[in-house]
Amino acid sequence: MDTHITQLVFPPGFIDLGAGIPSLELLPIDRLEQAAEEYFAACDRRTLQYGAEQGSGPFREGLAQWLTEISDYQVDPGCLMTTAGASSALDLLCTLDTEPGDVVFVEEPTYFLALRIFADHGLQIESIPLDQAGIDLDQLEKKLARAKPRFVYTIPTYHNPASLTLSPGRRERLAGLAQEMDFLILADEVYRFLGYEQDPPRPMADFSAAVEQVISINSFSKIFAPGLRLGWIQAHPRVIERLTRCGMLDSGGGFNPFTSAVVDQLIRSGDLAANITEVKKIFHQRLQVMEQALIQHLPQAVYQRPQGGYYFWVQLPGLDTGRLREQAKEAGIDFRPGSLFSNRKGLRDYLRLSFSCCDESEITRGISELGKLIRE
Amino acid sequence: MDTHITQLVFPPGFIDLGAGIPSLELLPIDRLEQAAEEYFAACDRRTLQYGAEQGSGPFREGLAQWLTEISDYQVDPGCLMTTAGASSALDLLCTLDTEPGDVVFVEEPTYFLALRIFADHGLQIESIPLDQAGIDLDQLEKKLARAKPRFVYTIPTYHNPASLTLSPGRRERLAGLAQEMDFLILADEVYRFLGYEQDPPRPMADFSAAVEQVISINSFSKIFAPGLRLGWIQAHPRVIERLTRCGMLDSGGGFNPFTSAVVDQLIRSGDLAANITEVKKIFHQRLQVMEQALIQHLPQAVYQRPQGGYYFWVQLPGLDTGRLREQAKEAGIDFRPGSLFSNRKGLRDYLRLSFSCCDESEITRGISELGKLIRE
Repeated sequence: MDTHITQLVFPPGFIDLGAGIPSLELLPIDRLEQAAEEYFAACDRRTLQYGAEQGSGPFREGLAQWLTEISDYQVDPGCLMTTAGASSALDLLCTLDTEPGDVVFVEEPTYFLALRIFADHGLQIESIPLDQAGIDLDQLEKKLARAKPRFVYTIPTYHNPASLTLSPGRRERLAGLAQEMDFLILADEVYRFLGYEQDPPRPMADFSAAVEQVISINSFSKIFAPGLRLGWIQAHPRVIERLTRCGMLDSGGGFNPFTSAVVDQLIRSGDLAANITEVKKIFHQRLQVMEQALIQHLPQAVYQRPQGGYYFWVQLPGLDTGRLREQAKEAGIDFRPGSLFSNRKGLRDYLRLSFSCCDESEITRGISELGKLIRE
Repeated sequence: MDTHITQLVFPPGFIDLGAGIPSLELLPIDRLEQAAEEYFAACDRRTLQYGAEQGSGPFREGLAQWLTEISDYQVDPGCLMTTAGASSALDLLCTLDTEPGDVVFVEEPTYFLALRIFADHGLQIESIPLDQAGIDLDQLEKKLARAKPRFVYTIPTYHNPASLTLSPGRRERLAGLAQEMDFLILADEVYRFLGYEQDPPRPMADFSAAVEQVISINSFSKIFAPGLRLGWIQAHPRVIERLTRCGMLDSGGGFNPFTSAVVDQLIRSGDLAANITEVKKIFHQRLQVMEQALIQHLPQAVYQRPQGGYYFWVQLPGLDTGRLREQAKEAGIDFRPGSLFSNRKGLRDYLRLSFSCCDESEITRGISELGKLIRE
């Protein structure tokens, strides 16, 4: 029945080394069941009513407390707004803050499905290159001298697909530029909780308390389960106020009151934190397995070892990864070619490999097959 | 914490005769708990993954089967798409099918919060009057001769706020006009399951199988619980195909896979049908109590007895219901003044009363107080 499923393409035996999703066995249905039991025991019918546009107070309080505990700065529940996931947040921000024809800047490479959302809203997309410390701010400044974008969309931590992390200095400079020139920063921070070897720099979310232009987008998809369709925006209270006064939320109430009430239990019980610890351990092992496999089977691959997140961003100098993908698929292997992540069909000798959705043996087998294909 | 809650304004003792929401004690948390238990017993982790853009196959199959059982025509799961409720569906359709500046037609009166959604998308809204048989198609044809709208937004069954039902003949003529002139009909059919005394005419949804221009929007908010944020679109498979290929759904997957998997259990167990039977009985009694109270305490009120839905649409000839509302609020009573439902600030001597969100004694007391206020 599932006719068209972009995110789920798994014929049996097929190894998809490209999908940016957690593997099925990592989806913590038992923890969710426990949280649901606690939710139903509390029997609060208000959670089944139309909810507050900003999201329920108790949920945002619990979330703020957890974010405060794991950061070294205070998060206020008034700075948080419940969403139906990062994609819904981007869509909402496009509806409310842009008009067709507006120019927006993205990184090159960037998350390809965000490009689709921006295109649906008729936005004109321009690219800013990345270097090893994240988005190239000199290039950004040059572009800003010619045109002011409505927003800059950035993935500052454990970038998708480039696995880079924006340096602390550049974070400050970027927030400063946004404030000075008055353009929005939509910071997609969904990978920030998945650091495997050291803590990432302070999130862009942290700047939003002082800089109204900074809007941080986050989600439970990468730290718990995508199927919940639950996330949050962290921004200045004046920004939150503006976003919650839209027609869709006035009419339908806030996003997902029932689901957020269940996740509220999950946060308060400590089970969300426990889940993150668990998946981080597994992803870290998979990362190491993938690195070993790359060293062994793809010695020509150029990449920077990821410090967190889901991805290896691999350059195979001189090779057309779009064509390689066709051959790989026939051999039962998939990845995502670099051109997908380019707004100008560039990056043709790059590919994105994900260690989130395959187990260790599949990773080894998949990369070994890929190596064979390339040698042939 | 809940700073801004349009849909939930209940100071203790306050009687809100206006809100279009079910009262708290009618929200079936026990039935949901039962469905959740069955969901967790099935332990299908795929429901926690990114889902099919169109919505999960099993859920749409169960929904199609239920819709077929209660209608006298066959509903195909391929004609259904899962949404996060009617408001999210309207928002999605505006994003994908309109551009700022497009003209759209609404009914006068119409659901006021839909107007907000259309305004957020920059649409130019024009009004078509209603008469006793629903939207006035002669007026619509006159307007069509001058300008083609992108869509006509209509609430054909147990209208909000007018409680009217579009006649079978007009349904056919409206679908025919849409096909002939090629404009969309967005039919908001969320009240169609709440007929208290006789079955409503065949839904506009039924026309969508033959007429691609007809898109029916529905929701579990009025028949189960708004907090689920779950609904569906019924339309021609080619329309569904187009809607599911948007960036937001490509990125985030379909709407609310977890919640729809729980509701799937609810439909299959027969508990959704049982819930509808139960709330219909209660709403029907409340309708009768409100009618009696109107006869007794507001003899000057002009209205047509509702056959279903949530509302009495009451004219108090010569009275400014906006000013009445201010006085009523001071006396601890609320309703929705007619001007809210007008795109041109008309309908000033109308008011919408809802029998969905107050119990019988509150309804009697509220209307009696309103009568006193008016006599003073």
